[in-house]
Amino acid sequence: MTRDDIARHLRSIVGPNGVKEADALRLVHPGSDARNLDAGLMVTPATTQQVADILRFCNDHRIAVVPHGGRTGLAGGAVSSEGEVILSLAGLNRIESLSASAATAIVEAGVTLHTLQEAAAKEGLSTGIDIASRGSATIGGMIATNAGGMEAFRHGVMRQRILGLEVVLADGSIMRDMSEVSKCNEGYDLKQLFIGAEGTLGVVTRAVVKLTAADAFTATALVACPSATDAVTLFQALQRDRGIHLLRAEFMAHDYFHLASQSLGPASLAAFTQAPAYLILETDDPDQPTARSRLEEALGLAIERGQVVDAIIAQSEKERNAIWNIREDSSVIDRNCPYCHWFDISVPLGALETWLQQFNGGIAALGSEFRGFAFGHLGDGNLHIGVAGETAWPDKERAKAIIYANLRKMGGSFSAEHGIGLEKRPELISEGDPVKLNLMRMVKQALDPHGIMNPGKVIG
Amino acid sequence: MTRDDIARHLRSIVGPNGVKEADALRLVHPGSDARNLDAGLMVTPATTQQVADILRFCNDHRIAVVPHGGRTGLAGGAVSSEGEVILSLAGLNRIESLSASAATAIVEAGVTLHTLQEAAAKEGLSTGIDIASRGSATIGGMIATNAGGMEAFRHGVMRQRILGLEVVLADGSIMRDMSEVSKCNEGYDLKQLFIGAEGTLGVVTRAVVKLTAADAFTATALVACPSATDAVTLFQALQRDRGIHLLRAEFMAHDYFHLASQSLGPASLAAFTQAPAYLILETDDPDQPTARSRLEEALGLAIERGQVVDAIIAQSEKERNAIWNIREDSSVIDRNCPYCHWFDISVPLGALETWLQQFNGGIAALGSEFRGFAFGHLGDGNLHIGVAGETAWPDKERAKAIIYANLRKMGGSFSAEHGIGLEKRPELISEGDPVKLNLMRMVKQALDPHGIMNPGKVIG
Repeated sequence: MTRDDIARHLRSIVGPNGVKEADALRLVHPGSDARNLDAGLMVTPATTQQVADILRFCNDHRIAVVPHGGRTGLAGGAVSSEGEVILSLAGLNRIESLSASAATAIVEAGVTLHTLQEAAAKEGLSTGIDIASRGSATIGGMIATNAGGMEAFRHGVMRQRILGLEVVLADGSIMRDMSEVSKCNEGYDLKQLFIGAEGTLGVVTRAVVKLTAADAFTATALVACPSATDAVTLFQALQRDRGIHLLRAEFMAHDYFHLASQSLGPASLAAFTQAPAYLILETDDPDQPTARSRLEEALGLAIERGQVVDAIIAQSEKERNAIWNIREDSSVIDRNCPYCHWFDISVPLGALETWLQQFNGGIAALGSEFRGFAFGHLGDGNLHIGVAGETAWPDKERAKAIIYANLRKMGGSFSAEHGIGLEKRPELISEGDPVKLNLMRMVKQALDPHGIMNPGKVIG
Repeated sequence: MTRDDIARHLRSIVGPNGVKEADALRLVHPGSDARNLDAGLMVTPATTQQVADILRFCNDHRIAVVPHGGRTGLAGGAVSSEGEVILSLAGLNRIESLSASAATAIVEAGVTLHTLQEAAAKEGLSTGIDIASRGSATIGGMIATNAGGMEAFRHGVMRQRILGLEVVLADGSIMRDMSEVSKCNEGYDLKQLFIGAEGTLGVVTRAVVKLTAADAFTATALVACPSATDAVTLFQALQRDRGIHLLRAEFMAHDYFHLASQSLGPASLAAFTQAPAYLILETDDPDQPTARSRLEEALGLAIERGQVVDAIIAQSEKERNAIWNIREDSSVIDRNCPYCHWFDISVPLGALETWLQQFNGGIAALGSEFRGFAFGHLGDGNLHIGVAGETAWPDKERAKAIIYANLRKMGGSFSAEHGIGLEKRPELISEGDPVKLNLMRMVKQALDPHGIMNPGKVIG
């Protein structure tokens, strides 16, 4: 079939405005990673039934389908190629219902996280999950990648926020498993297969999302610690402190904080005490003065215990934003060191210090022209790591050897929250359990026998 | 192969003492449901490798295998028949490690919940999950059934407590997915397939269990409410109260509490105020007087608001035990009404009152010789329901019709935490989504092509 034939048939399903081609597509999505749009053909259905009709057509004609949410993925899961069809979920963008009494929302896959966060906040609720790309990332995409983010240590990753799921399979059949309850054991929990499958087994169209009670006020501190171990000990003490309601605990190793604060400012943060480890701690509370005074008190005790060498508590929203900007605008690394390989790992908290020492030693041995940047979500031991050069690429295989050394033995993971996509496939094959890999291929073959679902990603 | 041949081969794998037959078997396990032991042949391996060797042998010879944990299941998942082999995990009973700093434990499948709870408590930690059969129920069995219990609204069900899993597949291959971190996206999360599969896809041999910080002291109250809606509203208010750390919130409808308290005593509880709905509320706190005084204060406010008509706060461990005994010894119903059909459902909290009214109306219409008993875990909307007669069986299909009416439409589930086993298979087929059922059969066929794993249970 020619692209014209395919486009014509897709228009018969979704109407004339639901299909965009080539140049028009790039005009409409100017900010996207160019590789994501290489298919040159995007269909945007408005209903689950249209998704089903599209998949049935594509399956019958062996046309590859690349599902797109907000295109904020970091592992190449949305990359498309000539001859494929991009299936955008942007048209399935309704919050169907939100129950304050049950603390659940029923949403279509294309709803952005930020839209759901705002709707939940009106009822005094939270999604219990937050990521920096909240304005574009969609619930469907976050389900497909099992997103994690900053509040996962308290509220769980996306898998734990999903009570029910509707998925369209490769052959166009629709699995409706829209339970609204936490306890539901109705045979194999197949929705778990689609959560984190990055669109390679089916297309998520609707979900029941668990919400959680939220407090109105937060207190935010930037903290310098003498070591990663002290940061972990402080985190665990705050988690056990019933007067403190820890919502976020972001970690930054020295080199990340130093470069980001120098580059992004303001001067007050750029001049903050030098230390091996930094934390951004955020608590929530029904009352603003209580939130701040309790955090202040807890940090005062931590200073006395020697776990903290210096701390700043944000006194205004402006100060809070400045602190968060240093953590969230991590592209500051790429701007300063354009030759950067990125990694996304989990390390059990008990092994964090050992891993960091191993990492720092390894980077030093790479040579003085290369630098290592580590930061991430402390509570999950989830580190994002850049191994970077200002003028030349560091050797990727050597960087991998440093970062993955002993990681499996420590109980950690080479793929924490960004998924496998295209880019982690070598790691999946080299680090993954062979029996599990075989099972994955078996499941892929059973659910998508013609291999039309996001081919080349994950295991397909 | 004769049973003797099979027994001889199994002894060559596990040694002479690892295989029990017929009468010896019944002597060793006198308390078990007789149907569980009908196979008349039980093998008890001591290592994962022995489990693998047993399954490979049984798969090669098409011998059905029924995995046994603590045999506390309530849906017939451990029932065995002549010609089958019972595979007991009782010999895999070691806690391999417990890390206080990472709040994780690596355990073999046969460790009982109570054993793990005691080990965790020594480090100020909790398993975050508790069920009445804690003394016998094993971690492996709780994984196989995705157990829930009393603390699930706070800490999640078993699925949320498992970071890593080792599973032996039907062909004897071993899937090792023993991650010790919360964020781990290494392709399809296949361990989720085995959690809740009731031993029909493979045998769980080891797991990484997430632990949680625990407080030393609890306060316990028995509370009478004017309606289920008031009970729900009170529960939600306590959940949002940052001074209260709600650990358990068990619901009992009038008829359950009345019969259980009359039958079990003591007199003080048997004489407690009559009301449509009762709660047992339990909080934890680092400090005993604080725990009690805060619960007392919160309940005082609830009485003022009219959400509570009467409350007793336990003043001693003896009083606490008496209150819990009324909820946990639910076999009191069977002893009083021996003709009892049991159900296990979830109802979204927003629909609980509606469902209960529908239930009470339906039971009344069955005739005065029959009674309905509802109780369970309020936070999850998880109700255990007995429809019972003192002298004759109520019609099971009519009972189902009452209980399942509108349940799916409400977003609830016909199978909350006890699983499908043998006994819920009719419901699974009649209530389950047909596309999901097809996928389940496909997965079963792919993972266990000869159908040796716990045949006849769930979908097999």
